[in-house]
Amino acid sequence: MSTLGEAFTFDSSSIFDNMKLLLGTSVASLAVLASAQRLTNVSDTSPFPRDSPVPGNYTGGLRPQVHFSPPQGFMNDPNGMFVGKDGTYHLYYQYNPADIVAGNQHWGHATSKDLYRWENQPIALYPPVPNSGVFSGSAVTDPNNTSGFFPDQDDGVVAIFTVNYGDLKLQTQDIAYSRDGGYTFEWYEGNPVIDTNSKDFRDPKVSRYGDEWVMVVTWSQEFSIGIYTSPNLKNWAHTSNFTDHGFLGTQYECPNMVSIPTRDYDTGEPGENLDLLTLSIQPGAPLGGSVTQYFIGRFNGTHFNTIDQATRLNDFAKDNYAGQFFYGIPEDKPQIDIAWASNWQYTNRVPTGSEGWRSIMSLPRTNYLTNATRIGWTLVTEPYGLEAITDNSVEEKTWTGNGSAIVDFARVESNAVHFSINVTNINATDFGANPTLNFTFLSPVSGESIRAGFLFSGDNPFWLDRSHTNGFADDVFWTSKFSVADIYNGTVWNVEGVIDRSVLEVFVDRGIHAATMLFFPDQPLTLLSVASRDLSADAKVELAVWGLESGWADATSANGTVVGNATRV
Amino acid sequence: MSTLGEAFTFDSSSIFDNMKLLLGTSVASLAVLASAQRLTNVSDTSPFPRDSPVPGNYTGGLRPQVHFSPPQGFMNDPNGMFVGKDGTYHLYYQYNPADIVAGNQHWGHATSKDLYRWENQPIALYPPVPNSGVFSGSAVTDPNNTSGFFPDQDDGVVAIFTVNYGDLKLQTQDIAYSRDGGYTFEWYEGNPVIDTNSKDFRDPKVSRYGDEWVMVVTWSQEFSIGIYTSPNLKNWAHTSNFTDHGFLGTQYECPNMVSIPTRDYDTGEPGENLDLLTLSIQPGAPLGGSVTQYFIGRFNGTHFNTIDQATRLNDFAKDNYAGQFFYGIPEDKPQIDIAWASNWQYTNRVPTGSEGWRSIMSLPRTNYLTNATRIGWTLVTEPYGLEAITDNSVEEKTWTGNGSAIVDFARVESNAVHFSINVTNINATDFGANPTLNFTFLSPVSGESIRAGFLFSGDNPFWLDRSHTNGFADDVFWTSKFSVADIYNGTVWNVEGVIDRSVLEVFVDRGIHAATMLFFPDQPLTLLSVASRDLSADAKVELAVWGLESGWADATSANGTVVGNATRV
Repeated sequence: MSTLGEAFTFDSSSIFDNMKLLLGTSVASLAVLASAQRLTNVSDTSPFPRDSPVPGNYTGGLRPQVHFSPPQGFMNDPNGMFVGKDGTYHLYYQYNPADIVAGNQHWGHATSKDLYRWENQPIALYPPVPNSGVFSGSAVTDPNNTSGFFPDQDDGVVAIFTVNYGDLKLQTQDIAYSRDGGYTFEWYEGNPVIDTNSKDFRDPKVSRYGDEWVMVVTWSQEFSIGIYTSPNLKNWAHTSNFTDHGFLGTQYECPNMVSIPTRDYDTGEPGENLDLLTLSIQPGAPLGGSVTQYFIGRFNGTHFNTIDQATRLNDFAKDNYAGQFFYGIPEDKPQIDIAWASNWQYTNRVPTGSEGWRSIMSLPRTNYLTNATRIGWTLVTEPYGLEAITDNSVEEKTWTGNGSAIVDFARVESNAVHFSINVTNINATDFGANPTLNFTFLSPVSGESIRAGFLFSGDNPFWLDRSHTNGFADDVFWTSKFSVADIYNGTVWNVEGVIDRSVLEVFVDRGIHAATMLFFPDQPLTLLSVASRDLSADAKVELAVWGLESGWADATSANGTVVGNATRV
Repeated sequence: MSTLGEAFTFDSSSIFDNMKLLLGTSVASLAVLASAQRLTNVSDTSPFPRDSPVPGNYTGGLRPQVHFSPPQGFMNDPNGMFVGKDGTYHLYYQYNPADIVAGNQHWGHATSKDLYRWENQPIALYPPVPNSGVFSGSAVTDPNNTSGFFPDQDDGVVAIFTVNYGDLKLQTQDIAYSRDGGYTFEWYEGNPVIDTNSKDFRDPKVSRYGDEWVMVVTWSQEFSIGIYTSPNLKNWAHTSNFTDHGFLGTQYECPNMVSIPTRDYDTGEPGENLDLLTLSIQPGAPLGGSVTQYFIGRFNGTHFNTIDQATRLNDFAKDNYAGQFFYGIPEDKPQIDIAWASNWQYTNRVPTGSEGWRSIMSLPRTNYLTNATRIGWTLVTEPYGLEAITDNSVEEKTWTGNGSAIVDFARVESNAVHFSINVTNINATDFGANPTLNFTFLSPVSGESIRAGFLFSGDNPFWLDRSHTNGFADDVFWTSKFSVADIYNGTVWNVEGVIDRSVLEVFVDRGIHAATMLFFPDQPLTLLSVASRDLSADAKVELAVWGLESGWADATSANGTVVGNATRV
């Protein structure tokens, strides 16, 4: 395959034609394998380079600069997320290097020390046979060599994932192990490790509970999460099912179970950990397409028992799916997750295809549970460690009562900013008719905008509106208005967020509510206007806007190409 | 109050000014009552007429003709729905006769023999003291005089409802009885019948299970439904709570529990009844604002036990809330409900205010449960008895494979039509790239449109789009695109619906999914275009459009006023 590797040079105009050509050749030459019913070792069926990362151009006007996106081609679910022994975060992802629509699923790979500056790595896992795919899954470190794969080291990594056999209409759970800390993998010869003869059995997420490995995995069309335990990652015992919970949609996907800290929302005082079970459904979300919900409970070693029968959604907009938690974050720390920031209803059609890539990941986020006033147990979600990419520019504006401010951030090269709006000293007895804090991101060139706002009275809606950006506006699935009721405490309220070329993420009321919203403007949005109206006269509004550094700029060559880590293998 | 009644004459330009004047006078003259902590008998504090219905003008361009709407003023939840001994359907509703925004809650009243031709009746229940409201509730017939209110008759009616005492911040459950079949009520002198000293305890819905009356009622902000039983409607025993189930939003409202038939979806074969528990939440719905969800289970006389922990929504758009089931439909028949067709996020601002009224009810709908292929237990919802108002005009068009048709229904005086699109003989192996059935309702004058469609492949989305009508389009809460995944059986698919000036209701795949969607065009939509593309060549498309008769036209006087039943009292 080395000639294919060499032939794989980046040319933004013809890369996909080249790839299709290569793929066609490859599939033809591999036709002899088509009769193989199943392989348990990795096979060399992919035309994509094994020795170097896929190169990419991250300069496009729609390409986020502080969010991860693939160098080119199509990405979906985050996979295999873990923290290595050296503190490096590993992110794998469902990846079609051959096209800008889903299919041909590989595991792409990238690493980062800060979750913002990513180094693209060579593709980590390849489909084992024609018409197969390496579907979603997870990874763990195995320092104690429970698996037996790592007799001489304490930094072994095991990936646990679904293989989809298209010809067999079969999905099995398989494993592969890495002796170089997660860069290259060997497939376990005893695969599959779980086969229930199901065509819809996927997305294993493994975590550590006490002395055991615990897997959650879905029988997607039976609306069931299977829970398995294992001493060694190879032999798995089925312990229970978690079935017919929450919004069913039409398929369950991508479960996570993680021990997560609880905290008092106001004091930060830690409480006893609870277990969080997240579950994505697709299609059939309330807003259409894909969505992630979560359940709160306790895992007793065999069963996950919820604390109540409530259904809670992770995100109040439409572009957050299949979130995964990093393996290896200490249990007493807020757990860090990254989600796929898109929706299957339109992901294969969004305008970034004109730049040769589709889909981004969400910001990395910290998560803990709190028993919030009035609404009860809630996942609190905040952006992780933005200080790592905050440049030394900040604009701050402050006023009381009615007021407004405009911040022009055209100066910020990345076109990505972190913003925060804090409102304090609120006094409801002094409100006008419609006490609001509204803000707008605007392109002064095209007049396109993203709008948002909060009503401090009545039902306390916080709302988002992406209907005034031009790209993709008329797609019939492009729901453009989102809102959530935020029962704030009556005296202080805040929103913070990151806007990054074609995505806005907001964290309302210190993370009680979060939303991830794509948008596709013709021109960059470079102005932020904020206005308060009918607020109590003494209410104080503090606006801050920080410039963010591109996570890709340092890795970009003179011709605009990010080549990633080409020296690893 | 008789002079107030006489003064209450209909003048579309000044009616609300008059009402506000009258209300002001009344409140002033009743100020002596303000010190009363609570009244248990009805008091005469309302300036609105007791002897005649509120008159209305139903000719406005936005006024639906086959949906119930109030003569003027503001309406929300349906209340007290029952079928009388003579077969008359009684619909009460949360009513503010004084303004076109919510407040000042009375029980409006209307009756019908067919659920489409409504006769407005005098207001049935009035707030008992200043700053109080008669909030939502239900009604039952008491032919066996369990209540003791009806020693000499078998057509007694008892209403069970919440009284909201604004000054006391208290909500209690109270009853009133009617000896004339539901037209006029006397308040029970032993009120309240349930008082838990709560400010958020409301919306009692009473039904009959065996020899007992059973009430479901919410402690809204505790996310709890209380279940009470009673032998006589006066003395209630608390039996259980149903707490923290489903999507919580920020408040529980308007529960219903009803024994409901199950049927095989394809054969219609009846199965054992189940119990359906519906629950509305507001605010905080996934799509913003208000939504209704349902739970399926069995009531054992004290507890409601769900068959699973799934959360299911009644409607996939944004304008269906607080639905209530008629009391008195035989248990082995599909149960009939009517919902409020609006959303608290915008109901107080929608453009019908220019016509002097706001809010409509949904179509009456029949409901049963089925164990649907792939998605499991599902509420199947279809429009009730449209034949009662179908005029003798129908246009039918049929084609195979790719094709299209336009039906001009400008001829239909009501501007309301019932449409049905059946697709049969579908063969997925013969599909083109995007096998679709799309349809559009269009104004040839303004170019405004409502769009909808179904994709027969992939995730099978059925979608609706109201973004191309002018009225209200830029309201930030006016979500305009909705969709649902419909796993049809692969060979036949259908959609039917009713469009009625400013509302579209659709029933997808013979009622497996339903949506209620308001829209506010500048000009009437009078054309329906339908097109199929990339369908299998032999697939047969059958379109039918029936004109509907206005339910109000017969009751309208020469000057356009519907005076309702002015002779009852």
